[in-house]
Amino acid sequence: MAHPVCILVDWGTTNFRAWLVAADGAVMDSRDAALGIMQVPEGGFPAALDRQVGAWRSADPGLPVLMSGMVGSRQGWAEAPYLPCPASAEGLAGALLEVPGEAGVWIVPGVSRETPDGRHDVIRGEEVQIFGALADRAAGAARSRQVFCLPGTHSKWAAVQDGRIDWFATSMTGEVYSVMAEHSILGRLMDPAGRDGAGRDGAGEDDPGPDDPGLDDGVSFGKGLALAAEPGGLLNHLFAVRAEGLFGAVPEAGLRSYLSGIVIGHEIRAMCGIARPEGPVTLIGRPDLTRLYAEAIGLFGPSTVVVTSRDATLKGLSILRKAMPID
Amino acid sequence: MAHPVCILVDWGTTNFRAWLVAADGAVMDSRDAALGIMQVPEGGFPAALDRQVGAWRSADPGLPVLMSGMVGSRQGWAEAPYLPCPASAEGLAGALLEVPGEAGVWIVPGVSRETPDGRHDVIRGEEVQIFGALADRAAGAARSRQVFCLPGTHSKWAAVQDGRIDWFATSMTGEVYSVMAEHSILGRLMDPAGRDGAGRDGAGEDDPGPDDPGLDDGVSFGKGLALAAEPGGLLNHLFAVRAEGLFGAVPEAGLRSYLSGIVIGHEIRAMCGIARPEGPVTLIGRPDLTRLYAEAIGLFGPSTVVVTSRDATLKGLSILRKAMPID
Repeated sequence: MAHPVCILVDWGTTNFRAWLVAADGAVMDSRDAALGIMQVPEGGFPAALDRQVGAWRSADPGLPVLMSGMVGSRQGWAEAPYLPCPASAEGLAGALLEVPGEAGVWIVPGVSRETPDGRHDVIRGEEVQIFGALADRAAGAARSRQVFCLPGTHSKWAAVQDGRIDWFATSMTGEVYSVMAEHSILGRLMDPAGRDGAGRDGAGEDDPGPDDPGLDDGVSFGKGLALAAEPGGLLNHLFAVRAEGLFGAVPEAGLRSYLSGIVIGHEIRAMCGIARPEGPVTLIGRPDLTRLYAEAIGLFGPSTVVVTSRDATLKGLSILRKAMPID
Repeated sequence: MAHPVCILVDWGTTNFRAWLVAADGAVMDSRDAALGIMQVPEGGFPAALDRQVGAWRSADPGLPVLMSGMVGSRQGWAEAPYLPCPASAEGLAGALLEVPGEAGVWIVPGVSRETPDGRHDVIRGEEVQIFGALADRAAGAARSRQVFCLPGTHSKWAAVQDGRIDWFATSMTGEVYSVMAEHSILGRLMDPAGRDGAGRDGAGEDDPGPDDPGLDDGVSFGKGLALAAEPGGLLNHLFAVRAEGLFGAVPEAGLRSYLSGIVIGHEIRAMCGIARPEGPVTLIGRPDLTRLYAEAIGLFGPSTVVVTSRDATLKGLSILRKAMPID
């Protein structure tokens, strides 16, 4: 029987996921729990980790643990300082944070970027997925410039060249979708049974769960995408959800899909304008979201390839694991 | 002493305002109350009007009442059907709705527009203000094409040519500002004492009130406007409020102004792109909002002239009053 060499953990805002991995990369066991960092009380991270993977650690004392995601944020277990762009997998592996007081428990840093006009942007967790998805390509393809899209509450677009993340940007697509549906006048006409179109979860959390976008009626989402390609701007297009609802031009059951199409269309339009993908865009995310995004990106031109965030995370952590200082 | 000939009423979502007017247009008395249509119980409109202006009506039985604003919406006293674009003041006066069961009480219809791609947009109350502001110009100027901006929860931009409103569009600027500040992650870093920048009130309600934008620190609002002129799109620029707050590049006390500058800048950029004003843009609104918008519009090119929404409403209702069927 294979011997485990490491525990890999993806610990985000709303979910916890762990894999027990053998030297050849095979997954020997895994855990999934709705135990995001927001559910962990102050000082409760050691106990929370123990509840999930304590049995694996007892069976193999000294087994290293490698974690990525919001667990390394200021609101997480220990803050792993951001690595500035351009960032390579080797750079990340060399900047792992060993959690103070927890020998053998390591956290992958996030990546930060400063724009030419001096603004900041950050990712945490998506960097691991990007390198995971990249590793699945032929080495030649991986050398050319690749554009990635990771849809979610805060969607991330990134570009990788020569194995380094050299650009990324965040769009608040999923959050704008949900606050407008739940807290603005737009929600008044919506079917309360409706479910999300734009994603509510962060990267790395690819369970459809209760926010499964069940309401793409095949028409309203596309109408929203088409509107996003028109002039007027997002602030104007958002009002169409109310006006078209009032005039019955979009049925109540389609208003969430319409809103979803509008915000996703605006994200893609703006991000394609900056990232200017020359080849296919690699989509990393939950299958329900990547399906919507693949349809939408196709309308704006680029083709897409899809990787689930679960696969990308496992692959990315496996790559970083091999470069860990203790290996 | 002058004799009253009419009662003019501006009845919006959150405020009630009335003027007792003489034949020469002089205001003999006025009332202001925080009695928006949302505060009036079902069936309570006759009593609500009586509480505000019953004394005027008792003193002069048969005095006609002319009302504009959301009182004519589906949620108001009686629904006054929209007049389609292009709409003139004469057209509005000819389409007044006499409230069923209330002889002598009239409501100005709103205006609707169908876009070339078949979408709908609506205004209700702003049409009166536009004709009021227009009447203050030399007749020659009023014949050429004029662009109007009425900032608020749902900002309206409109164009008038040959005395007819022939285009308008709505932007959800004030509402996006407030739901993002109150219900998204952006609010977490904000100074809770901060007040609104983008306006929360509808047109025609020009009291500064509790949402007075006190926090334009002279820097953060301008930084937000400058960002809105960059590529990336609104969904990306909104995230800058979080990132710049996290990195301390915008102080906590300035984050509301920064957000306000971003959304107002996006509105102006998109609307100027469609409306293409050739002369000055006429701003109609609360003085606090029109000050911010005048600064912002100037950065995007056009000059501005400012009319308070109170003045514009009174003037516009006075014009329509003269064309009332009972006059």
